[in-house]
Amino acid sequence: MSITDDLLANNARYVETFEGPLPLPPAKHVAVVACMDARINVYGVLGLNEGEAHVIRNAGGVVTEDEIRSLAISQRLLGTREIILIHHTDCGMLTFSDKDFRDGIRDETGVRPAWSSEAFDDLETDVRQSIARIKASPFIPLTDSVRGFIFDVATGKLNEVD
Amino acid sequence: MSITDDLLANNARYVETFEGPLPLPPAKHVAVVACMDARINVYGVLGLNEGEAHVIRNAGGVVTEDEIRSLAISQRLLGTREIILIHHTDCGMLTFSDKDFRDGIRDETGVRPAWSSEAFDDLETDVRQSIARIKASPFIPLTDSVRGFIFDVATGKLNEVD
Repeated sequence: MSITDDLLANNARYVETFEGPLPLPPAKHVAVVACMDARINVYGVLGLNEGEAHVIRNAGGVVTEDEIRSLAISQRLLGTREIILIHHTDCGMLTFSDKDFRDGIRDETGVRPAWSSEAFDDLETDVRQSIARIKASPFIPLTDSVRGFIFDVATGKLNEVD
Repeated sequence: MSITDDLLANNARYVETFEGPLPLPPAKHVAVVACMDARINVYGVLGLNEGEAHVIRNAGGVVTEDEIRSLAISQRLLGTREIILIHHTDCGMLTFSDKDFRDGIRDETGVRPAWSSEAFDDLETDVRQSIARIKASPFIPLTDSVRGFIFDVATGKLNEVD
């Protein structure tokens, strides 16, 4: 049995008490962009229920072209109006340099990624950078409420970055 | 009060019963790539607890360069070994064409996105495309367990795409 098989057995139990379907557009008109970190259960952290918010996640919770794509679809086609960004303490992105990561892949595979790893060395600076990338994009129509937070993995608290 | 403020009030309650910190690497060595759809509570659907799996999400649950970046970091630096892809029924990505979406942005803002919206017209075909993009990447070392599913928003069930 793989871990995937174990998780599918969990899904069979989830189905037993599942109630659906809910409507497609998020009921709270919010989109969240968070790090992929395993310790951030976005629904728990924000007290969200199924059907309430789009959840976009990647390594670091950074904003690259693909997050602009997702946010553009979220706002333009599905009516979200507020954006919440979540980075977190003890993030893996603080533990390596972009150059070392890409050089390591080149040394191992012969191919150096053309993309940046988006590694960063300061959490607050990177939250502000992510906010700035959203506000600078011509494709995101609503940027009045774009707020960034650092999730404390020791306490569960979201601390806002001003 | 904005919705964001409401969700921060929820977070204050979450903190009261929070127990941490957990270790950084995902305990189950799994990375999930899922659509951002508000109805997919990944932790619930797979019976995951905090700290067990990386969760990567975007519009469609598609694999683009940014998901390759996140999966490369997940496997190379944080030890994940299995990948689970989740698309879902009633997906917004089935409801528009890439050309119409980008032309509409051009007409409204004057700037046509250089990126694809990644809209698709068949769920199973797109799940297979996402699996193929992962397996074709030189940057993802472990591809023995890359399995794709369609989450049924009416029943909560994950149906595997062979």
